[in-house]
Amino acid sequence: MTKYNAFYGQSGGVTAVINATAAGVIDTARTHCDRIGSVYAGVNGIVGALNEELVDIGQESSDNLAGLLHTPSGAFGSCRFKLQDLTAQRAEYVRLLEVFKAHDIRYFFYNGGGDSQDTTHKLSQCAKEMGYPLTCVGIPKTIDNDLPLTDNSPGFGSVAKYVAISALEASYDVESMHSSSTKVFIMEVMGRHTGWIAAASCLAQDERGLGPDLILVPEVVFDKASFLARVDQVVAEKGFCVVVVAEGIKAADGKFISESGSTDAFGHTQLGGVAPRLVDLIKQNLSYKCHWAVCDYLQRSARHIASQVDVDQAYAVGRAAAEYALQGRDSVMPAIVRDEHPPYSWTLTPVLLSDVANREKAMPEEYISEDGFGVTEAGRAYFAPLIQGEAHPPYENGLPAYVRMSKSLVRKKLASHTPQNN
Amino acid sequence: MTKYNAFYGQSGGVTAVINATAAGVIDTARTHCDRIGSVYAGVNGIVGALNEELVDIGQESSDNLAGLLHTPSGAFGSCRFKLQDLTAQRAEYVRLLEVFKAHDIRYFFYNGGGDSQDTTHKLSQCAKEMGYPLTCVGIPKTIDNDLPLTDNSPGFGSVAKYVAISALEASYDVESMHSSSTKVFIMEVMGRHTGWIAAASCLAQDERGLGPDLILVPEVVFDKASFLARVDQVVAEKGFCVVVVAEGIKAADGKFISESGSTDAFGHTQLGGVAPRLVDLIKQNLSYKCHWAVCDYLQRSARHIASQVDVDQAYAVGRAAAEYALQGRDSVMPAIVRDEHPPYSWTLTPVLLSDVANREKAMPEEYISEDGFGVTEAGRAYFAPLIQGEAHPPYENGLPAYVRMSKSLVRKKLASHTPQNN
Repeated sequence: MTKYNAFYGQSGGVTAVINATAAGVIDTARTHCDRIGSVYAGVNGIVGALNEELVDIGQESSDNLAGLLHTPSGAFGSCRFKLQDLTAQRAEYVRLLEVFKAHDIRYFFYNGGGDSQDTTHKLSQCAKEMGYPLTCVGIPKTIDNDLPLTDNSPGFGSVAKYVAISALEASYDVESMHSSSTKVFIMEVMGRHTGWIAAASCLAQDERGLGPDLILVPEVVFDKASFLARVDQVVAEKGFCVVVVAEGIKAADGKFISESGSTDAFGHTQLGGVAPRLVDLIKQNLSYKCHWAVCDYLQRSARHIASQVDVDQAYAVGRAAAEYALQGRDSVMPAIVRDEHPPYSWTLTPVLLSDVANREKAMPEEYISEDGFGVTEAGRAYFAPLIQGEAHPPYENGLPAYVRMSKSLVRKKLASHTPQNN
Repeated sequence: MTKYNAFYGQSGGVTAVINATAAGVIDTARTHCDRIGSVYAGVNGIVGALNEELVDIGQESSDNLAGLLHTPSGAFGSCRFKLQDLTAQRAEYVRLLEVFKAHDIRYFFYNGGGDSQDTTHKLSQCAKEMGYPLTCVGIPKTIDNDLPLTDNSPGFGSVAKYVAISALEASYDVESMHSSSTKVFIMEVMGRHTGWIAAASCLAQDERGLGPDLILVPEVVFDKASFLARVDQVVAEKGFCVVVVAEGIKAADGKFISESGSTDAFGHTQLGGVAPRLVDLIKQNLSYKCHWAVCDYLQRSARHIASQVDVDQAYAVGRAAAEYALQGRDSVMPAIVRDEHPPYSWTLTPVLLSDVANREKAMPEEYISEDGFGVTEAGRAYFAPLIQGEAHPPYENGLPAYVRMSKSLVRKKLASHTPQNN
């Protein structure tokens, strides 16, 4: 049987487990070495393909490749680079196919969120139009959990676990100090458009009154008066209040709370951080001592506390993607299907990229409690399985033994190319 | 032999391992049940003693007591409450002795930082003056690592491990995204007066260029121009820059950078957060895309990634304190002594509280690199052993199985008392 090479690229914001997906693709390609020759990874995703900067994965040490399973971030580099439609950027798509042809690449794997699935879909269309035999498979990845048709997205479960554990630990801290110190603690997490991440912190809530007391999501309009009233009520009832807030909460006028009104000494609008904004509000209106944290990248790179379910799923979607490609399925993405009945189990199924592209999965309304400050039992039941199991990385000298690729590049065969940035 | 009861109190900012110290005291007291009757824990430290709110540890379940070893925060409640000197607050000291007498308490253990050691010392003096036989032992605890005469303070090693791992993980994230996204990441950690915590993040630096590029500590005056020049240089050299900054850095005028100049829409001074301040500076002067995180309480409550060395030392100081008390050593504190020669090993020795009280241990100048932006090999050698080993807690349903005390209170015997707050 004729062998062809494969391209694998990482795209968009990285996660604690996207490299486990790379491992799934690579391992599966290797078990089918009769049909897949080399796997080439794009340096910084699709940008590497455009620039003909291709990492020869065959040159990486076996330790490095084994380490992909437990190393966070994008081991081959990721990018924020969206190809527009075929008409506007046809030259870019044609360039991609030229590079692939030059390197005998006939399998294309793109590992990312909604934009990446869209790019994969368009590339498939372009290849068909141009008569180049390329099998294109998208692979899901996003901490935002907003990809449609899949029960959840690899990357999300580990963030969910991180924020739930962090909120739990902070609530223990505040509980033990509140009688003579901090009364309100606010933890800011990612989520510009949806509250998936913030909502997952509900898992830290228990019958002992620990975990977050209030969870603020972008799906609910932020109302200053009712927020302050609830904080005041919780402090009155239990002595302290722990708030988890998504960065993207907005007021009724549609403006982000993180952009509300502050200017620095030079008159510039003060940079974001919705947590310090809420702390200002509380101090001005309720005079409680407050503390706040902003998790930012720590939440999505925290491989040290990754969910085993998430690692398993991340690896499995990589493996499935390679299998789909070998089965000749083009323009599909492996989606996670949750079995209807407990205990939690899941399978993978191919879904059409045409159905995935350009659709965001919103958090269901029934996951948000009626008062808008919490998560329902239905939400909790959805989130709970995704954080199960601790995929502890190996440690050396007290630190996780993360690997770093040598990134040996394949010799270029084409003239250089300047991508049209956008 | 006559049995007497013991008082144990937690004081000041809590840590990931202070409850392991409680376990050390309790376990040791139990093995000497011929001499120590009950251990009573103060609800919120010394405040609980003043209020005669004493938790009867004998009423806690064995699961709860075993769980102290892996549960963060102060399980019995902590306090920010400093007793002044014997002249100013004699009534408070007398009250303490009345409570102890009423409950047959002749052993006093106070687990905290410098202020708590001072309180313990004064209480010992007062008891002697009043002729009440009380053996007072201070037990070290502080994430700030600023207690004198001990090589390090229990609580610090786990924060050091958390910040080193977080800086490592964030640097992986930024490295993989920098070509088309964030160039500078700033992580703010605790350290109002000293840079111990920020400096410990140096452990994440490796020969591969990962970990923090710049470390800013309060010991070095913050100079805007040289900071910006260094950030610019690092970005030019490697494409991205990771900065770890202690909350307490100051400008040449002695003002905290976190308080520099910003006001909100109402004209109030903008609340702290030195990380967003530095990001403002960079955006205004270098125009790099930046991200920032503020660890706040997450760093000191992160029991999920505690250092095994720290847990071991925290338990051992509790055990030693109980043993010192049984040996009749009054007004002492167990101090950690590092053996001079590698490999790392340590022992405990009693030091006099009169030598500990009211002295802060500064970070040695020779730990700070000449340019003021890094840590020397001497510093690295000091920090490295303190983060060794992973004391993973047990998990249930994807979350650490932290315990919460039932806090069954001993029946009061005295009239109520209103502490003189301060």
